[in-house]
Amino acid sequence: MGQFMDVHTNMPGVTAEALLEAHRADVAIQGEENVDFQKAWGDPKTGHVFCLSEAPDADAVQRIHERAGHPYDEIHEITVTA
Amino acid sequence: MGQFMDVHTNMPGVTAEALLEAHRADVAIQGEENVDFQKAWGDPKTGHVFCLSEAPDADAVQRIHERAGHPYDEIHEITVTA
Repeated sequence: MGQFMDVHTNMPGVTAEALLEAHRADVAIQGEENVDFQKAWGDPKTGHVFCLSEAPDADAVQRIHERAGHPYDEIHEITVTA
Repeated sequence: MGQFMDVHTNMPGVTAEALLEAHRADVAIQGEENVDFQKAWGDPKTGHVFCLSEAPDADAVQRIHERAGHPYDEIHEITVTA
């Protein structure tokens, strides 16, 4: 298992309700890929959303995000924190 | 006060020690701009580091990061979370 920060770059105008709905759509199926979405942060002005998760690998994160209708644009495996 | 996610895109090979040192350099002077750096996540392979903070504005975050020697490449004001 690793920790991942994935980034969506094209969600301008995302509302609190839309982000919560998207997050819940992930959480509803995340167990099928052994993914644990921990937090999502969004900036409606730039259209960026950052999702922090624990997962077996980046592809597992993407499979859940794709099935929920919002694939990430990039992902980074977090191996150092402060 | 707002919440911000800033992104550094050119820190390949960043070690846990280097990230902690960078974070401590921010924290040592953050009070002068009323910034509170809460967490940093790094991916040494892609060279990306994400910093979550509370601050009066994006410029205040940048002034601290610049004085500490690591200006951000982009920043997003977080107004929605899940």
